[in-house]
Amino acid sequence: MFKEIDDFEDQAYFFQLIPAELETEVFDYLNVNQQLALLNSFDEAHKRFILNTMSPDDRTTLFSTVNSRDSVRFINLLDVENRTVALNLLGYPINSTGRLMTPWYIAVQKNWTVQETLDYIRKFGKTSETLNHIYVTDPEGHLIDDIIVSEFLLASPNEKVEALMDYKFLALDSYGDQETDVDVFRKNNRIALPVVNREGILVGIVTVDDILDVVNEENTEDIQKLGGSEPLDAPYLEISLMSLYKKRVVWLIVLFIGEMLTASAMGAFQDEIAKAVVLSLFVPLIISSGGNSGSQAATLIIRAMALGEIKIKDWYRVIKRELITGALLGVSLGIIGFLRIALWSLFSNIYGPHWMLVGITVGFTVIGVVLWGTISGSMLPLLLKRCGLDPATSSAPFVATIVDVTGLVIYFSIAMFILKGTVL
Amino acid sequence: MFKEIDDFEDQAYFFQLIPAELETEVFDYLNVNQQLALLNSFDEAHKRFILNTMSPDDRTTLFSTVNSRDSVRFINLLDVENRTVALNLLGYPINSTGRLMTPWYIAVQKNWTVQETLDYIRKFGKTSETLNHIYVTDPEGHLIDDIIVSEFLLASPNEKVEALMDYKFLALDSYGDQETDVDVFRKNNRIALPVVNREGILVGIVTVDDILDVVNEENTEDIQKLGGSEPLDAPYLEISLMSLYKKRVVWLIVLFIGEMLTASAMGAFQDEIAKAVVLSLFVPLIISSGGNSGSQAATLIIRAMALGEIKIKDWYRVIKRELITGALLGVSLGIIGFLRIALWSLFSNIYGPHWMLVGITVGFTVIGVVLWGTISGSMLPLLLKRCGLDPATSSAPFVATIVDVTGLVIYFSIAMFILKGTVL
Repeated sequence: MFKEIDDFEDQAYFFQLIPAELETEVFDYLNVNQQLALLNSFDEAHKRFILNTMSPDDRTTLFSTVNSRDSVRFINLLDVENRTVALNLLGYPINSTGRLMTPWYIAVQKNWTVQETLDYIRKFGKTSETLNHIYVTDPEGHLIDDIIVSEFLLASPNEKVEALMDYKFLALDSYGDQETDVDVFRKNNRIALPVVNREGILVGIVTVDDILDVVNEENTEDIQKLGGSEPLDAPYLEISLMSLYKKRVVWLIVLFIGEMLTASAMGAFQDEIAKAVVLSLFVPLIISSGGNSGSQAATLIIRAMALGEIKIKDWYRVIKRELITGALLGVSLGIIGFLRIALWSLFSNIYGPHWMLVGITVGFTVIGVVLWGTISGSMLPLLLKRCGLDPATSSAPFVATIVDVTGLVIYFSIAMFILKGTVL
Repeated sequence: MFKEIDDFEDQAYFFQLIPAELETEVFDYLNVNQQLALLNSFDEAHKRFILNTMSPDDRTTLFSTVNSRDSVRFINLLDVENRTVALNLLGYPINSTGRLMTPWYIAVQKNWTVQETLDYIRKFGKTSETLNHIYVTDPEGHLIDDIIVSEFLLASPNEKVEALMDYKFLALDSYGDQETDVDVFRKNNRIALPVVNREGILVGIVTVDDILDVVNEENTEDIQKLGGSEPLDAPYLEISLMSLYKKRVVWLIVLFIGEMLTASAMGAFQDEIAKAVVLSLFVPLIISSGGNSGSQAATLIIRAMALGEIKIKDWYRVIKRELITGALLGVSLGIIGFLRIALWSLFSNIYGPHWMLVGITVGFTVIGVVLWGTISGSMLPLLLKRCGLDPATSSAPFVATIVDVTGLVIYFSIAMFILKGTVL
């Protein structure tokens, strides 16, 4: 029926006669060119209604047929959910630049005059997110320059845009990673940057206020991982209790099972503990000092990596620093540990007649465990990165668990060496 | 000698004759009005040289005499170090908005015409950080409006600026806190905001790219605190080894001394351990599950507080959620703990004839310890905030240490209750 109405005016007129509840149904039935022509005749609210109610597959066909800029414009009229679906279907992965861009920029052609550009800004400037830069594209839509807006105000009205161009510009890749974008913004101190697709066609801009959201999201994820939880992906008070439980239980179980090795390690030294119960008293103190120094080192290194201060190739510089710092930290704590035992033994007999040897054992163990915690805490994030994994996975609890098991082995080995023949 | 040369032209001429190495010395000797007049006759490089080499107290006198905008302009010509000194002396505290602002904006008067404004933008637009908004001030410099630049392009050239004004604007307080600025930017999606002092005088603008740096710095501090270290305040590879040690050792010692309580707690149950060495085998497993669930909860709450998702008044909602989640997490781990002991006991006699009771003890202890870890981990940040302290101080290691000591008490109490008459 519709096919017979060839004249567009008639079509648009006819469309107005359709009851609102049937509009989208009829719209879906049209071919892409007819849809596009109709859409262009609608106001924003009407466009928004049709685009949000049409079926997702027809929507994708429409979006992939129209030029990139129109498609970005249309996508920006969609509700959050429909928008995610559309972006997925158009092949922009989660966390890609394409998901951040908006179509609210000003692009002109190089053969326009300055006057034409100013008239154009007058007409469309209100809907542009930023007017700092005006973008220049060739007739096919390839980005060929960005010009700071004040240049147009300085130039004489009859001059061509071309006269102002230097063909130098900075652009983001629409399929690129948002984390990379953050770096580009941080290094170049820009307020907005154009986005081009693989063919170099200008498809949108990203403004730094959206980058601010990306930074916050990334940091939240990193922090939550550091705390030994999966990223919540939602505000704490809004996430359902079941999701909150699920996001947390997985890592806790992994760590719990890992930590079971401590029971095995302790089991291996059961006879020594039976002979010298005094040894068991310092187990929590020793494993926690290893755990604390390990989480501290891991957190510092993970953050430095996230900020780009440390790369994998820097591992040798890191290990040198951590060896020295870890030794200093270990000696500091080891001395305090020894003094604690010595002091208590002056006033009580709780640590037995060989308290001096016990104190020396604990002191040396703390040095060893702290040094070991520092080294493994600092190297684990680099190792994970080397294996293509996220360094933030080496959370504080994860490092603590690894250090706990080895810490026990260090403790009882040193004890057997020092206390053989006396306490043991 | 200088006082006798009254004519400014002569002064400027005379100044040129002075050898470069003596210039600043002579400049310091002039009164503020003479200095200002001379500075205005210099080019940027010359201004920069004089301002950076003059003595700090003379510089402060000069800055506090000239109007606010000129002082911000001058401050921006200083090297990083001199700038910090100047900002300190001018009373902008560290982390205040005043430290972020730049003087590169366009401000006009309401009785100017649109044409005059455009001419002004033409002249000074190049040095403005953003042209999205043009600011309107009264003759005394009070900010009275911000107008989007496209309005000027739309209006007729003879219209007065006043005709475009709505007297509605958003501004930051120059003595305000940078953290608040981050929120304002995030909520209002703005690319730049004007800054006013206590009298409402426009003194600068802050652009969102500087806010990006603030966000990153804040997050770094929070993450480093969460890892149980003082904020490094410098890139990891650049900080001196001694500073690296100092920033880390303080918290490690605090935690180590706190953790010594575990030795006392263990000592209190020494007799029980001597009777049933099997109990000591699970000490690391139990205290670590409390520590892990505690750090997890603390991290999630601290982050949610930093993002403004949770306020102190929400404590009851938080505790309800954590009670349920903590119980679920505890039961999940408790069951795994019991099964581990049961399974091992099928194939060996390592846990003795009463392995079932030992398993039940460990199972219930894990439930209690995890629940306790979750509650204290989530409440501690809120409590710290309530006491006016930084919630991020309740780092993962800090929470773990608190939970370790109480975890031991929970463990041995449950053990004495269940195992009395059999193992104990």
